[in-house]
Parts: sequence; C-alpha cells; structure tokens
Amino acid sequence: MTQRGLDLDDIVERALGGQRRAVGRLLSVAERGGAEADRLTAALHGRSARAHIVGITGPPGSGKSTLVGRLTAAAAASGANPAVLAVDPSSPLTGGAILGDRIRIDRTGGDVFVRSIATRGHAGGLAVAVPGAIRVLDATGFDPIIIETVGVGQVEVDIAAMADTTVVVANPGTGDAVQANKAGLLEIADIFVVNKADLPEAEALRLDLERMLDLSHVTGHEAYRGRRAPIVLTESLSGTGIDELWTEIIDHRSLLDASNARQLRQLLRLRAEVEALVAGRIHRLTRAVFDSSAGERALADLASGRIDPVAAAEIILDEGTASLGS
Amino acid sequence: MTQRGLDLDDIVERALGGQRRAVGRLLSVAERGGAEADRLTAALHGRSARAHIVGITGPPGSGKSTLVGRLTAAAAASGANPAVLAVDPSSPLTGGAILGDRIRIDRTGGDVFVRSIATRGHAGGLAVAVPGAIRVLDATGFDPIIIETVGVGQVEVDIAAMADTTVVVANPGTGDAVQANKAGLLEIADIFVVNKADLPEAEALRLDLERMLDLSHVTGHEAYRGRRAPIVLTESLSGTGIDELWTEIIDHRSLLDASNARQLRQLLRLRAEVEALVAGRIHRLTRAVFDSSAGERALADLASGRIDPVAAAEIILDEGTASLGS
Repeated sequence: MTQRGLDLDDIVERALGGQRRAVGRLLSVAERGGAEADRLTAALHGRSARAHIVGITGPPGSGKSTLVGRLTAAAAASGANPAVLAVDPSSPLTGGAILGDRIRIDRTGGDVFVRSIATRGHAGGLAVAVPGAIRVLDATGFDPIIIETVGVGQVEVDIAAMADTTVVVANPGTGDAVQANKAGLLEIADIFVVNKADLPEAEALRLDLERMLDLSHVTGHEAYRGRRAPIVLTESLSGTGIDELWTEIIDHRSLLDASNARQLRQLLRLRAEVEALVAGRIHRLTRAVFDSSAGERALADLASGRIDPVAAAEIILDEGTASLGS
Repeated sequence: MTQRGLDLDDIVERALGGQRRAVGRLLSVAERGGAEADRLTAALHGRSARAHIVGITGPPGSGKSTLVGRLTAAAAASGANPAVLAVDPSSPLTGGAILGDRIRIDRTGGDVFVRSIATRGHAGGLAVAVPGAIRVLDATGFDPIIIETVGVGQVEVDIAAMADTTVVVANPGTGDAVQANKAGLLEIADIFVVNKADLPEAEALRLDLERMLDLSHVTGHEAYRGRRAPIVLTESLSGTGIDELWTEIIDHRSLLDASNARQLRQLLRLRAEVEALVAGRIHRLTRAVFDSSAGERALADLASGRIDPVAAAEIILDEGTASLGS
C-alpha cells in the first residue's frame, strides 16, 4: 500500500471518529474524483447510515441561503445533525480541485457543516462528485444532508432530483412560478416554499402555484403521483414558517419510509452514479485515443476536408476499440 | 439504398435548391441525431460555404429576441441572408424530436429564417445538434448564422463559444455586468451590448463593463488577446445602435479573416463535434451493456450492497470492452 493509501485510510478513520477537518478533506477527495475518490468509495462501502437527502432549489436571489441557514438551525434544534452541500453554478473553478478543503462552519451561529461545490467547468463530473460528497457526509453521521442548488439549468434540476425530498423555492412578484414550471421544477417538487411571504404579491404567487398544481397531473417524485405538494409560506429573515417547513420535510420522509420509496430512490441514485463513473472512464479512454497518432491523422484528414466529422469519429472509435480490446 | 435514404437525398437536393421547407426538414434530422443525421453530415460534406457564426448570449429578459430581430433586419438590408438558431434552455422537449419541423419565418416583417432548439433534456446531444444545424444552414446559403442563447449555464457559454463572433448582452440596473463576469461570459465576449440604453442606469453599466475590461487580461476568443471588446449601446425597441452593432460584427469578421483565426476556430469546432460524436456512440454502447445480463447482475450486487459503485462500474466497463472487441 502506498503512502497516500495509508494517508487516506487514516483520514477516513479520523472522519468516522467525528473530526470535522478530516470530513472536509474526504469531501475534497470525493470532489476531485479519480483513483483516490474510487478508493474512498471502497473505504466507505457499507458505512452508509442512509441519511435523508433534502434538495433545495430556486432562482438566484430567492433567499435560499438564508432559508437553508434557518432550516438547519431548526433541524439542529430538533436534535438532528444537518450538513449542507451548496452547489453553485456560477462560481469558477480553480484548477482541478473544487474550493479545496475550505469548510464554512455555520451561517446561523449554530454548529452546522456547510460545504460549497462550484459547478462551472465541472462538466459531467458533478454527477460523480455530488453522490461522493453525500456518501462522505452520510457515513460520518450527518442527517439530514441538504443540497442547495440554484435552479436555472438542467444540471441543477438533475441535482435536485438526487434528493429524497425536493423543496422548490419561489419569490413573490418575480414570475418564478412560471419559470419553475418551464424549467421542469414543478415535476420534481415535493414541497413548495413561497419565501419573502411578507411581500404583498405572496398570496398571488401561492394561488399561481395552486393553479399550476391543479393543472399538473404529476407532482413530486414519480412514486407519489397521488400526493399533492404542500405550499409553505416563509420569511427567512424573521424565521416565520421555518418550523412548518421542517415539519413538512419530516412528514415527507415518513411517507417515503412507509412506502419503501426511499430505497427505490437510493437505488436509482446508485445506478446514476455508476453510469457517470462508466462515462467518465470512457471519456478518459477516448481522450487518449484522440492524442494517439491515429487520432491525430484522422483530425488532420478532417481539417483538410478529406473526411467528414462522422468518418473521423468512426476511425477514432475503431482505434479506441482496438486499444480497449488489447 | 433504403426508402428513407432516397428521401434524405431528395430533401438535401431540394434544400440546396433553396426550398425552405426542405431546409427545415434537414434541421429536424440534424437535431434528432443518430444514423440519419450521420448520413446527412456525409451528404453535406464539402458543401460548406463557411458562413460567419455569430453567438448572442445574455440573461433572460435582456431583450435578446427583439435585438436579434433588429439585427437580422439590418443584415438583410445590407444584402446578407441571415438565419437564426434560438437555443432555449427552459423549453421542454417532447419525445426525442426537437420542436419537429416548426419553422418560424421571421419576427421583423422581413424574410428571416428562425429555428428554435430546446435544450432541456438534450444532455450532451446539443454538442452534436448545434454543429449539425449550423452545417445545414451554412450549406444552404445562409450567412450570417446567428446563435441566440440564454446565458445562464455552462452549456450556454459553450454554445456561445461555438461562434466566430460572440456578442454578450447586458441590461442596465440588473447587476448583469457582475453576473456576466461570474459566469465566464467576459472571457468569451468579442462585443458587448448594453441594451435598453435609454434607461438611466445604462451609463453606469457601461462604466462597470469598461472597468471589468480594464481589470481583465483576456477578452474575446483566445486568438485576440490584444483586442479590447467594444461596448455598443442599443435600444432594441427603437432600433438605436443596431447599425453600429452590425458594423462591429462585420469589423470583427474582417479581423478574423485577416488573421486566419476563423479557420482555426472552424477546426476547433470540427474537433469538438467529433469528440461529441465519439462520446455519443460510446454512451449508446454503454447503455447496451447496462441492459445486458452482466450489467443487470452488477446492478443487483450493487443494490444488495455486495459491491460498491466503483466495482459495478469496472464490471460494466470490462463487459463493454469485451463486447467492443468482439
């Protein structure tokens, strides 16, 4: 076993023993991906405590961060040990590592573990990095794990869909209800939050959401077509409605447990993670073929117009197949 | 040759002859991808007229559509034959086909070809679909080809970067300058547009952009690090500034031609398309392995906790390798 191998086992042990700095280092390993992340996955195998995963999504400026801060405080007050994964699509990446082992402990005065993951430039890697980070937090005793994302693109919808319970936040007077509908958030929402409920347009937004739920036949994850997503009015600044939101999340968790639906979602998540791992490995193999002499020849022929892109792709794929098979 | 094969050749001929309905049908073929799109690529090989590709990106609500309508009118008035590809990340897909052969002819009263591509659910397919659509429009005589995207995610930045000239639109009083900077749009912008320039905050936005350009060492595509992106003030409703924008686009095109940079960008685009084609083929092969008995066994072992996701990925990859090599 290599020196790095010993290091990783050591960090795992310390993280499982409750050292938060070690947890942060494992999160960095998971986010970077690659061989060490694979070893981490193996090391944590069988350690899952099956934490409840709560996805919270909404447009920029909807006050999600404050809301999440309030929610974790409510969770901690009820005896839970919450952690937050904040997935930010607009923060740039620096090199391969994602915000290193920068761990923000708390936003609310309480003792809550908050980890940021920047998605820009992460491409498909997020589909591996987020489950990896969840596995670390789950194994080290955090529950619930709250994934906070900005709901503007397909990636964010996909990440919200990794959750057991998905909360969609909308703001009064912004057309958020229509946007949420267009972006497909209506279909993944288990709970709606009308934040900034003190604004005069809050009631109109609630009615808009009710109307869309009336029209929609699908609300919430596929297993609960019969359930109608509740709408909770909150004011994250004052804390109004936060306890009700936490209660709705707990209720949804109970519903999932009663129907075995959490196991089903866990399985779908594992399958999606395997798909992303396979895709990542194949991507690396393909890159290698591109850089081979055969790949360079095909690209030169493409540049000169001797062959078209489809022909170039076939040549490179044949070459890759040959090298894979050997 | 199959019946469908005869059909495609027939449609290609009619599209090359100038029939717009046939162009629309080819765009549908390109967008759907798969074997027929591959045959289309082969059929259009060598037909490229090297149209100028203009990417226009900006946040939702920045008045891009109106601006693009004005711009195409200005282009047409100068004797050009513009077409628009509107890439919309929030429109949902229906089935596999993307908005079928729905072709909106014009928004301005003129005779401009406008095609919408919905990106939601398109995953990596856009990286093939957009170059395919560009190839169709290029071969059938459109120039410039304007790609209009909503600049909120990495996909949109990637698509804007497919252009020869990238125009980034910002709105006064919205914090767009900061957002554009965060999203990486500053690095890809060849021209900035301050739209709604009649608003009182327009001058402040222009100054913000100037300041960011002062601080930034990189503006515009990699080949023109010495060039500073111009800032054009427009009012898309009244048409103010549109002629100036069109002139800036023409000037940038001349600059690219003078430095052979367009050829370089064309080559990078071709390479990116080949990469996406290879990735798509491998993805399909992998899917097949997932659905094989070995894949199902690996997923069952994963579900029961006998193996971890990395081990499952290795098994599935080995199986795929074996089937590729056979």
